[in-house]
Amino acid sequence: MEEAVQKEYFELLRFRSVGADPAALRDCADCALWWKAWLERLGFAAELVMPPVKGGVAAPPVVLAERPGTEGAPTLLFYGHYDVQPADPLDAWRTPPFEPVEKDGRVYCRGAQDDKGQSFAFLCGVRDFLADAQGPVPSLKVVLEGQEESGSAALSALAPGLRRRLAADVLLVCDTNAAPALRPAIVAGLRGVCHFTVRLTGPDRDLHSGEYGGIAPNPAQGIAALVASLHNPDGSIAVKGFLDGVVPPSAEEAAAAEAGMPDAAAFAADIGCPPEGGAQGHSLAARNAFEPTIEVNGIHSGYAGAGSKTIIPAGAFAKISMRLVPGQTPQRAFAAVKAHLEAHVPRGLKLAFEEWSPGAGGFRLPLASPVFRLAQQVLEEMDPRGPVFQWEGASIPVISLLREVSGAAPLIVGWGQATDRIHAPNESYGLDQFAKARAWGRRIVSEWTF
Amino acid sequence: MEEAVQKEYFELLRFRSVGADPAALRDCADCALWWKAWLERLGFAAELVMPPVKGGVAAPPVVLAERPGTEGAPTLLFYGHYDVQPADPLDAWRTPPFEPVEKDGRVYCRGAQDDKGQSFAFLCGVRDFLADAQGPVPSLKVVLEGQEESGSAALSALAPGLRRRLAADVLLVCDTNAAPALRPAIVAGLRGVCHFTVRLTGPDRDLHSGEYGGIAPNPAQGIAALVASLHNPDGSIAVKGFLDGVVPPSAEEAAAAEAGMPDAAAFAADIGCPPEGGAQGHSLAARNAFEPTIEVNGIHSGYAGAGSKTIIPAGAFAKISMRLVPGQTPQRAFAAVKAHLEAHVPRGLKLAFEEWSPGAGGFRLPLASPVFRLAQQVLEEMDPRGPVFQWEGASIPVISLLREVSGAAPLIVGWGQATDRIHAPNESYGLDQFAKARAWGRRIVSEWTF
Repeated sequence: MEEAVQKEYFELLRFRSVGADPAALRDCADCALWWKAWLERLGFAAELVMPPVKGGVAAPPVVLAERPGTEGAPTLLFYGHYDVQPADPLDAWRTPPFEPVEKDGRVYCRGAQDDKGQSFAFLCGVRDFLADAQGPVPSLKVVLEGQEESGSAALSALAPGLRRRLAADVLLVCDTNAAPALRPAIVAGLRGVCHFTVRLTGPDRDLHSGEYGGIAPNPAQGIAALVASLHNPDGSIAVKGFLDGVVPPSAEEAAAAEAGMPDAAAFAADIGCPPEGGAQGHSLAARNAFEPTIEVNGIHSGYAGAGSKTIIPAGAFAKISMRLVPGQTPQRAFAAVKAHLEAHVPRGLKLAFEEWSPGAGGFRLPLASPVFRLAQQVLEEMDPRGPVFQWEGASIPVISLLREVSGAAPLIVGWGQATDRIHAPNESYGLDQFAKARAWGRRIVSEWTF
Repeated sequence: MEEAVQKEYFELLRFRSVGADPAALRDCADCALWWKAWLERLGFAAELVMPPVKGGVAAPPVVLAERPGTEGAPTLLFYGHYDVQPADPLDAWRTPPFEPVEKDGRVYCRGAQDDKGQSFAFLCGVRDFLADAQGPVPSLKVVLEGQEESGSAALSALAPGLRRRLAADVLLVCDTNAAPALRPAIVAGLRGVCHFTVRLTGPDRDLHSGEYGGIAPNPAQGIAALVASLHNPDGSIAVKGFLDGVVPPSAEEAAAAEAGMPDAAAFAADIGCPPEGGAQGHSLAARNAFEPTIEVNGIHSGYAGAGSKTIIPAGAFAKISMRLVPGQTPQRAFAAVKAHLEAHVPRGLKLAFEEWSPGAGGFRLPLASPVFRLAQQVLEEMDPRGPVFQWEGASIPVISLLREVSGAAPLIVGWGQATDRIHAPNESYGLDQFAKARAWGRRIVSEWTF
């Protein structure tokens, strides 16, 4: 990496842009201003869009930039985020979390990869292209938000009002992983997501389980029975209507997902237990890419300390999230789960729903689309192994929304690896990965010059 | 209450004898020394038995006292405890928790009732009797421990070695409630107890529920399914062998329990929800007095904070306690539950048991025994309504053991009321209740003078 590029990269990494932390709002704004200036130097008209203040709390600004291209050229919209995960636990870092350090061909810093590093490398590639461009250039739009790690609330609220300004032909995202050994990967689908908290209340206080055992209904047992009722013993989902309309993968999608999937032994080594989640009778790839899930992310009731406290707890709650696939909507899926839970409230207890997110649907992109064919060709030129297709179980909910608002075809190609330890201490990004992302940015943008 | 008695009572209450708190060990020892001196003034030979130091931690001493009676007279053993519950939450107290305050006929202080107040009142009655005694007197033994509120570990460990010194004909306990409106109540049975913690482990870290949903087994869902499997939908216990040998109540016991039991509306008003715990098809009284229970006292896994954290948690645990009835033993009941849980481990997860208590069995005493007949007669003389029988769902586990070690017939009569708020802030004991306990102590001891 040239010294000048590294200088910029390190400047960007030094902003403590923890978007979820209200105390870091100034750092986020400084980081957004840095991006605005950087894009302006490339000929973009850039501005900071301030999200509406909600409940007295301001949110990090959204960077919105546009650079008109040659008359009649297509429009490319790049989405990235400049916020990062909190740095804690601090004592697990070997170098200061917001002071980039290069060592053995890797840059260590919070955000070195996710997504400051990946988006900066990609946009450096775009700059490389613009610097050399002799002929026509596409119209370029950039949207960089500061809340991806905490739910994209501001951009989600703003996006519908920015329909015209975000309109594009292709939506480029560089915020995902390549396949193992840095083999290129195209994300051909994301599952959607919707989460909520369900609460059961019973006695008006914790009761002595001897004095009241057999009399008072037990919310800890109630939440267990309620949550357990969501799945059948074979791991399949027991909620009536939840799977209605689910679109199965095409034969080509199924085959591509199987081809790109590690085997059970590799998963067992990765996660430390047998990969036996999900519904029996489906392959690992199918369970992760094409089947929706209902997962309990937390369940809590009663005593948690050492030894025993023989109580009947007053209440209980579970945090539940769903991953959704094409054919489902967050509204319909939540309605089905809500109706199921309401029909299974244990005797004597009261049910309430809290913190329901509007959520996002899942999508799958046609493998044979012109955009993917073009991307495959570019990636084959960059790496003779060619790309694999991946269907990410995880969602980047705002992409569903941006896809809809912009009308663009998403092309999601990233250069992360498991070794980057994003979200964890000692996050890093390899110089080889940076170079790939930069080369990819330059080459894919150049394809739309025609 | 005479001034001299109140002075002693308040002295006793001022000791911060929180037996569960190692930092209060000195206060516990001071309290035990106070009791030793008090009993010595009544002609008892008293000593402090120091429990063996366990893991470097000393336990509060046990007060053991003996006063020989007339040759051939029966031996009465009184059991009580001088430890109290912790005082927190401190800011909920209207007066300092360890400074007794008399107001409107009640004494407010931690331990005013449980069990400093009740045991002191009873033993004041014994002193009244001794002061007046003209003829023969029974042999008297007193054991006062400092760990009742935290499991009676030291006394339980010491008791088998004190078999000869604890041997008695009647075991008197004043640590329970009277019926509403201070109607006398004889505890004719206690359920036993046994508790344990069950833990499930899955992935070696919390996993992203999008990336790994459908692949990794979910311990939060696993613990829910596991715990839910312990009961049938009708609330009955689904564990094979758990109910083997359970002794049903006699017709007389069943009738007495029904007679002494508030109705469903009273329970609903007390606990704030419909009293629909336990197995359908049994009355409230039967479910509370004669049916064993398995209660989840706590269940915990994964995220508990605001909003959502879409993880598959690495592990989960549940704290479970059983209430046992005659015909069951803690060993057999735990073995049945353990076998059930082991047979229901969800796919891909690992099961472990922790913190299993040796527990205590339940017992029921024959209603027509000479001791009960005598007690009924005394209580009828004290109150024309006469006593009711109660079968306490709660256990005082050490009583099972003392009963076995001493060979004595337990006579458990206390003068607490729900309004005393034991274990809660602003605990209190009415002067009328104190007087009843004192009168009861004097009169019941005098019955064994013959």
